[in-house]
Amino acid sequence: MTIADVRAAAPPLLDRLTQARAQTESLCAPLEVEDYVVSSMTDVSPTKWHLAHTSWFFETFVLAPFDSSYVTPNPKYAFLFNSYYVQAGERHCRAQRGLVTRPTVAEVYAYRAHVDAALRALVERIGDDPNHPAMPVIELGVHHEQQHQELLLTDIKHAFSLNPLEPAYARATPHCVASVAPLAWHRFGEGLHEIGAAPGAFCFDNETPRHRVHVHSFALAHRLVTNGEFLEFIRDGGYDRPGHWLADGWALRQAQAWRRPLYWSDSLESQFTLAGRRPIVAAEPVCHLSYYEADAYARWAGARLPTEAEWEVASRTQGASGNLVEGGQLAPSAATAGTELQQMLGAAWEWTASAYSPYPGFRVSAGALGEYNGKFMANQYVLRGGSCATPAAHIRRSYRNFFYPHQRWQFAGIRLAKDA
Amino acid sequence: MTIADVRAAAPPLLDRLTQARAQTESLCAPLEVEDYVVSSMTDVSPTKWHLAHTSWFFETFVLAPFDSSYVTPNPKYAFLFNSYYVQAGERHCRAQRGLVTRPTVAEVYAYRAHVDAALRALVERIGDDPNHPAMPVIELGVHHEQQHQELLLTDIKHAFSLNPLEPAYARATPHCVASVAPLAWHRFGEGLHEIGAAPGAFCFDNETPRHRVHVHSFALAHRLVTNGEFLEFIRDGGYDRPGHWLADGWALRQAQAWRRPLYWSDSLESQFTLAGRRPIVAAEPVCHLSYYEADAYARWAGARLPTEAEWEVASRTQGASGNLVEGGQLAPSAATAGTELQQMLGAAWEWTASAYSPYPGFRVSAGALGEYNGKFMANQYVLRGGSCATPAAHIRRSYRNFFYPHQRWQFAGIRLAKDA
Amino acid sequence: MTIADVRAAAPPLLDRLTQARAQTESLCAPLEVEDYVVSSMTDVSPTKWHLAHTSWFFETFVLAPFDSSYVTPNPKYAFLFNSYYVQAGERHCRAQRGLVTRPTVAEVYAYRAHVDAALRALVERIGDDPNHPAMPVIELGVHHEQQHQELLLTDIKHAFSLNPLEPAYARATPHCVASVAPLAWHRFGEGLHEIGAAPGAFCFDNETPRHRVHVHSFALAHRLVTNGEFLEFIRDGGYDRPGHWLADGWALRQAQAWRRPLYWSDSLESQFTLAGRRPIVAAEPVCHLSYYEADAYARWAGARLPTEAEWEVASRTQGASGNLVEGGQLAPSAATAGTELQQMLGAAWEWTASAYSPYPGFRVSAGALGEYNGKFMANQYVLRGGSCATPAAHIRRSYRNFFYPHQRWQFAGIRLAKDA
Amino acid sequence: MTIADVRAAAPPLLDRLTQARAQTESLCAPLEVEDYVVSSMTDVSPTKWHLAHTSWFFETFVLAPFDSSYVTPNPKYAFLFNSYYVQAGERHCRAQRGLVTRPTVAEVYAYRAHVDAALRALVERIGDDPNHPAMPVIELGVHHEQQHQELLLTDIKHAFSLNPLEPAYARATPHCVASVAPLAWHRFGEGLHEIGAAPGAFCFDNETPRHRVHVHSFALAHRLVTNGEFLEFIRDGGYDRPGHWLADGWALRQAQAWRRPLYWSDSLESQFTLAGRRPIVAAEPVCHLSYYEADAYARWAGARLPTEAEWEVASRTQGASGNLVEGGQLAPSAATAGTELQQMLGAAWEWTASAYSPYPGFRVSAGALGEYNGKFMANQYVLRGGSCATPAAHIRRSYRNFFYPHQRWQFAGIRLAKDA
Repeated sequence: MTIADVRAAAPPLLDRLTQARAQTESLCAPLEVEDYVVSSMTDVSPTKWHLAHTSWFFETFVLAPFDSSYVTPNPKYAFLFNSYYVQAGERHCRAQRGLVTRPTVAEVYAYRAHVDAALRALVERIGDDPNHPAMPVIELGVHHEQQHQELLLTDIKHAFSLNPLEPAYARATPHCVASVAPLAWHRFGEGLHEIGAAPGAFCFDNETPRHRVHVHSFALAHRLVTNGEFLEFIRDGGYDRPGHWLADGWALRQAQAWRRPLYWSDSLESQFTLAGRRPIVAAEPVCHLSYYEADAYARWAGARLPTEAEWEVASRTQGASGNLVEGGQLAPSAATAGTELQQMLGAAWEWTASAYSPYPGFRVSAGALGEYNGKFMANQYVLRGGSCATPAAHIRRSYRNFFYPHQRWQFAGIRLAKDA
Repeated sequence: MTIADVRAAAPPLLDRLTQARAQTESLCAPLEVEDYVVSSMTDVSPTKWHLAHTSWFFETFVLAPFDSSYVTPNPKYAFLFNSYYVQAGERHCRAQRGLVTRPTVAEVYAYRAHVDAALRALVERIGDDPNHPAMPVIELGVHHEQQHQELLLTDIKHAFSLNPLEPAYARATPHCVASVAPLAWHRFGEGLHEIGAAPGAFCFDNETPRHRVHVHSFALAHRLVTNGEFLEFIRDGGYDRPGHWLADGWALRQAQAWRRPLYWSDSLESQFTLAGRRPIVAAEPVCHLSYYEADAYARWAGARLPTEAEWEVASRTQGASGNLVEGGQLAPSAATAGTELQQMLGAAWEWTASAYSPYPGFRVSAGALGEYNGKFMANQYVLRGGSCATPAAHIRRSYRNFFYPHQRWQFAGIRLAKDA
Repeated sequence: MTIADVRAAAPPLLDRLTQARAQTESLCAPLEVEDYVVSSMTDVSPTKWHLAHTSWFFETFVLAPFDSSYVTPNPKYAFLFNSYYVQAGERHCRAQRGLVTRPTVAEVYAYRAHVDAALRALVERIGDDPNHPAMPVIELGVHHEQQHQELLLTDIKHAFSLNPLEPAYARATPHCVASVAPLAWHRFGEGLHEIGAAPGAFCFDNETPRHRVHVHSFALAHRLVTNGEFLEFIRDGGYDRPGHWLADGWALRQAQAWRRPLYWSDSLESQFTLAGRRPIVAAEPVCHLSYYEADAYARWAGARLPTEAEWEVASRTQGASGNLVEGGQLAPSAATAGTELQQMLGAAWEWTASAYSPYPGFRVSAGALGEYNGKFMANQYVLRGGSCATPAAHIRRSYRNFFYPHQRWQFAGIRLAKDA
Repeated sequence: MTIADVRAAAPPLLDRLTQARAQTESLCAPLEVEDYVVSSMTDVSPTKWHLAHTSWFFETFVLAPFDSSYVTPNPKYAFLFNSYYVQAGERHCRAQRGLVTRPTVAEVYAYRAHVDAALRALVERIGDDPNHPAMPVIELGVHHEQQHQELLLTDIKHAFSLNPLEPAYARATPHCVASVAPLAWHRFGEGLHEIGAAPGAFCFDNETPRHRVHVHSFALAHRLVTNGEFLEFIRDGGYDRPGHWLADGWALRQAQAWRRPLYWSDSLESQFTLAGRRPIVAAEPVCHLSYYEADAYARWAGARLPTEAEWEVASRTQGASGNLVEGGQLAPSAATAGTELQQMLGAAWEWTASAYSPYPGFRVSAGALGEYNGKFMANQYVLRGGSCATPAAHIRRSYRNFFYPHQRWQFAGIRLAKDA
C-alpha cells in the first residue's frame, strides 16, 4: 500500500486518534518495565516519558481548553511532562527525565487511559463539526503522537546500545543480500518552483507558506549511499583527512574520536540494531550519521548534499511507497536493482544542505503551540523523507524534519546531489 | 539491645551470612521495579546494582577461588557489577550504571538466589573449619553487604529527593519533640593512647594496626549539633561569611549556591526524608552536611571538629546503644534530656578533622581485595560512629568511614570538640 | 570620499600592499608593549599574533612558492602563526596564543619588515605582469591584511574591556546628539535577481558564483536600530520573555545571564568603547549584539532580520559612503535626520537571517587557500555591510562576513526587515 | 655559607626588607617586557602581578594601618593585586590575572618604588622599637616577598615551557655527572618528640604551636630519588599499573595522560629547565612530580613517603647547607657520593604523607592576615625542605609548604621512608 493509499483511505479523526494512541502502546510491547525508565543521553527520553508527554499534550492543548469538566489525575504531571512549551508553564529539567521512577509504568498507562477516555468523549460530543476549534489541535496531537513513536524507537535503540548485554528490541528479519545498481543520476533543469505544503491537508506550520523558489539545474542520485560505499570512504582515510570536512565537523570528529557511523563495531563488521548486533550488509543504506559525516562523504565522493528545495522538487517524480515503520523492518532496507529514483520516502532520513530557517512569509502561531517548531529555526539542518521508523500516515513530501548537525542517533543517511 | 549484646550474641557465620543477605532484600520491600533502575548522580548506584554487586563480590572473591564447580549465570555480570577492583578485571563505567535496564530486577534476584545457594553449599562443606581460607573472605563479604545496605538507603533517598512527586520510602514515625539539653562538654586529659582495632574480632584493614598516638587534652560535646543550632548559624549569616569557611569550601559553596543542608527546603521549615517531606524538628541532629559545612559551623561556634583519635578515645567511655537501622527510625533521633556523653554510635556519622590516611605500619593486602580501602587514602576525611542507616552488626568504635569533603548525601552530622 | 571613489582611485598593487601593511602598524600606535601579548578569550588573538600571522600569510602563500631565494627568519614561526590552514602544516593551539611571550614585539616588527622587503622585491621583479600567478595571491593577502585590521581593533577592545583600569585605545570624538528620524520603511517588489560578486574586481571565493535568486517582496528599515530603541526592548522585559527568543538563544541568555549588549554597564547608562567608558547615546546604533539578541529584538518589534539576498538587492539603491575605520570614529555614528536608506555600509555589521551556506555552484579552491572560507559554511550567520572598524578599501555590497550566532565582540547591529 | 650562618648573620629589619625587595627585582633581570604579562594556567601568576602583589601586601597590611600619610598611586590596585584576602576587600578574578596589560611593567616598578620609599620612611620613624605593632607585619611581608620569589621562578618556567620557541631564563650551568651512592637508610627509633617552630625566631602561624607527637620507629633514605631511579619506574610500567597508584591519582593519570614528570620529553631524554631544554642527568634528583606520582613511585619501590613529623625529627640531625636559589643552579643538583643524610634542605621540596592540617592547639589570627595559611588546611599535602628556587633566608626545618596533590609545577621531588 502506498502512502498515497494510506492517506486516501484516511479514516475519521476519532479512528485515527485511536489508532495512533494504540500504535504507540503496541510499540512498547517488547519492553520490560525497567526499559521504560532510562534516558541514555540528554537527547533521549525514557519510554515512560514519551507515553506520558503525548498524553500531556492532549490534556494541555485539547482537554484543558475545550473540556471544562476534565480533571487531571495529578496536577504535577503538567510539570513533569511538559517538554519545552515555556508558555505552558514551568517544566521538569530535561537532563533529569531519566531519574524519575514515579509515576510507575502502570500509573502512566492509567494516565493514558484517562486522557483517552476524555478525548473520546470530547470528540463524540463535537461530532462532525469540522469548524470546532478543538479539531485542528486534535489533528496536531495525532501527528505529535506519531513523531514520538519514531523517537521512542530511536531512543530505546540508543539506550540498549549502551548496555553491555546488548538486548534486542525485536526479532531480526532476514536481510536482502542482493546487490544494488551503481549510483545513477537523475537530472532536473533550472526553473522557478513552488515548495511547501499545499493548502488542504494537514501539515506542520514550518512547511508553510507554500512559496516560489528559483532552483538551479541539478542531478540527484537514484538511491541512498550504501554501507559498502561508506566503507570505501573509511578505508580511503575519510575520517583522517580534514580536507573533506567542515571545520566544526572536524573539531567534533577529533573531540569525539569518531571513526565510523554510530553503532558500528570497531571491526567495521557489525552494527547494533533494534534486533541486536547484526552483520553490516554492504547493499543496505548507511545511517546514523551526523550532518558532518554526510557532508564529508559527499565531498569525498565529488558530490554534495541536495538542498531541501531540490529534494522536494525531485521527490514529486517518484511514487510514494517506502520502507516505513509499519513494514516492521526497523532498519533501512536495500534499494532495488533498478536505477529509477527511489528510497525518497522511508528507509533513512536524508540530510539536506539547507539550514533550518523559516520559509519566506512564515508566521509563528500565537500561544504555546507557536513554540512547536518556530523557535528551533537556528543551528539545525533540514532532513527529508522519513525513515524505517516513521509511521506511514506521518510522512509527506513537504515534511521538514530538523536536527543539529552533530546528532547521530536518528536514522539519518545520505542522498547525493550535484550541479548539472 | 546494645551493640555489645548484638555482637556477644553473634551467631555462626552461615547464619550471619543468611541474615545479612536477607536484610538487604527486606530493605527493598518498599520499592517499585522502576525504583531499582536509576542513578541520580555519580555517587549514587541503582538499587539493582547494589543487589547484584554484593553478589558479584561473593562470586568473585569466594566462589570463583574456592568452589571449582561454580558457574556464573552470566559471564558479563563480572563486567557489569565490579565496582572498582582493577585487579579483578575490566568493569562498566560508574557513570553509566543507571542506564542499564537489563538484567531486569527479577533476573538480579535470581542471580542473588544462585549465589546464595552456592555460598550455602560451600559453607556447609567447609563446616566448622575456622582456618579455611574462604572463612575470612566470607566474613568480609558479610560486612561488605552491610555497607551496601546503608548505601542503598542513602542512594534511594537521593533519587527520590529529585522526583517532583517526592515519593516516600517508608512511613513516617512520630518525632520526639522534647527539647535537648544545652551543649555540655566532657574533658579528656593529655596522654598516650592506643587506637585502632584490637586483634580478635573482625575489622577492615584500614583500622589496623592498633598503634600508639599522643593525644592532647580536649573536650567533646555531649551530643550532636541540632537542627535548631544549625538554624542559628544560617540566620547569623553562616553561609554568607567566608571568614568561617575553608577556602575550598567557600569556593564550592559559591559554585553550588549552598545555603542550607542538603534536603532542606528554601523556607528552612521542612526537609526531604525517607518518609517524604517532613517538618524540621529543632531538637533533632542536623545531617546531610559536607565536611566544609560541618567545619564552618564549628568555627562559627568557637569550637572545632574532633580528630579521629580523640573521638575513639572518648567513645570508649560511652555505652554502646544507638539509633541504628534496625530501629526503623531512618532519621537521626534527638538526644536525651541528660548531658551524659551520647549519640556516639548511630544517629549520624560524625565528620572528624582527620584526613583519611594510613595508620602507622599499615600494609595493603595483596590482590584485588587490597583495593578495598587502601587506594582511597587521599583527599577524604574520616567519619566515625555510624548513622540511623547503619546495621548494628556493622558498626564499632574503631570503624573508619571516609568520604570526600564535598559529599552531602550520607547521614553525616557534627560533633563539636575543643582544646581543653 | 565614497567607497566607489576609493576603489576608482585604486593605486597599483604594490602601493596598495604597502599602504595596507602600513595601516596595520599605524593601528598599533596607541598600544604599549604589554598590550600586544594577551588573548582575552579564544576568539580574540593578541595584537602581536595579528601582526605576525598576516606576515606568515604572505610568507607561506606568496614568498615560499614564488621566491625561491626567500629564507624565513625563524622556521618555527610557521607553526606559531598559522591560524587554521590544515594543509599548510601543523599549527599552534589557538587557545594558547596569548601565552607566548616570545618572539617579542620588536622581533615581530622585524619579521614584518623582513617579509615586506622580500614582497617588495618580488612585486618589482614581477613588474606589471597581471597574469603572474603570484598576483591574485598578493591581492588576497592585502584583503586578508585588512580583515585582520578590523579584528585587531575588536580584539583589543575586548581585552581592554576586561581590565578594571578600563584603558582607552583612542581619544573620544565628540558624539552627535542630534535625534534621528523614526524608523521608515523602503519597499522592494518580488522578482528574480542576481546576487554575488560580479566578475572583474577582487572578491572572496564565498561571494561566487553570481547567481539568480527569487526574492519575495519586502520592506527594509531606512537605518540601523538605535541604542534608544534597544533600551525600550530591555525596559519592556525583552531579556526576560522567552517568547521573543530562539530556543538556543534563550538557553544561552540563561546560561550567560545576558541582560544587555556586551560592553553596556549594569545601569544601562554607559558602555565601554575604544575611547574608554562613555555615555550611551540614544540616537547611535546599538551594537555588540549576538544574532540571538538581534533576532529577539526584531520579533519584539514585530519585524524580522533581512535575508542576505534582500540586503544585497536593497543596498544597490544606496550611495556608497559610510562610517568606516578611516573616519577615525571607531564607534557606530548616528544616522542623519532624513529617512533615505542609509548606513548600509559602515557603522555596524548587520546580522542577516541567512545561514552561511555555499552559493549554488560554489567550488572550493584546491590547496590550503581553499580553506579560507569554505570550511566554515556551517553554524554561522551572514553579516553584511561593514562597520566603523572596517577599512574602506575592504568592504563591498557582495561581501559576506560570517560569525557564530553567540558571538558579540564584533561591531554587529540590527537592520530590520518585514514582509511587504 | 650554611643556612644557620645566613640566619646568624641576620641584618636589621630594614636591611633585610631592602635586600628582599631588591632580590625580587634582580630575579626579573633576564625577562623581556612581554614575559611579565602572561599566566599560563590558573596556578601561575604573571611576573608583573607578583611584583605588584607583594607591594600591595605591604601597602595594605603595613602602610594603610600604620602610616596615616600614605597615599596609594592608584586605588584600583587594591582590587587588582589582592590575591585571596577576602577580609581585605573585593579582588580581581585569579583566572584573569594574565589578561590585564595595564598597569604596564614600568608602572608596576614605579608602584614598587613608591611603596619602598614609604616603607623605608616608616621603618626609620619606628627606629629600633621592637614592640611597635608594625614590626612583625613587616617581618611577615619580607617572608611573603621571599615566597613570591620562588613562585616567580616556577611560574616563568611554566610559561616558557609552553612556548614552542622554548626560551631560556638563565644560562645553563655545567651539570655534575658524577654518580651517586645507592640509596642508604638512616634509622630513627620510636619516641615522643616535639615538632613545630620554637618560639623566638620568625615563623608562619601554621608552624605553631610546637607540640608533642608520638613517632614510631622509621628509616629515611639518605638522599632524594634520582632521575635515573625514576626512569626505572617508568620503564617498569609504573605509569601503566593502577596497583601502584592511589585511586584519585590513577583517575588523574588517565584523564591527563601522564606518562612522565612534567617538563620531560616524550623520548625521556631531555627536560625543559630554566636554562631551556637540557639532557636528563641520571644522578640528579627527579622533580616536578605530583603527590600521586611520588606516592606511586614509593609503593613501587617498596617504601612510602615520610610523615612531616618524621621528616622534621630526622632533619635535625643534618647540617644546614643546601642547593638554594642564591646558588644560581636553578635546578636540583645531585647528591654527594657519600651516604650521610643529605639534601634535606634545598634541591627539591619533599612531598610528605601528611595532609596539611592544623597542629593541635593552632589558632587562626584575627583579621585578614589570619587568612594567610589557615583557610587552606584541607585537601593539600605538606612539603618540606625547600628547593633550588627557595631563598636561603626563607627556609627552616619547621617550614610547612603545602600544595594540592595534583600540582606539578613546583620543584617537588621524592624522599623515601619506611617502617623500621
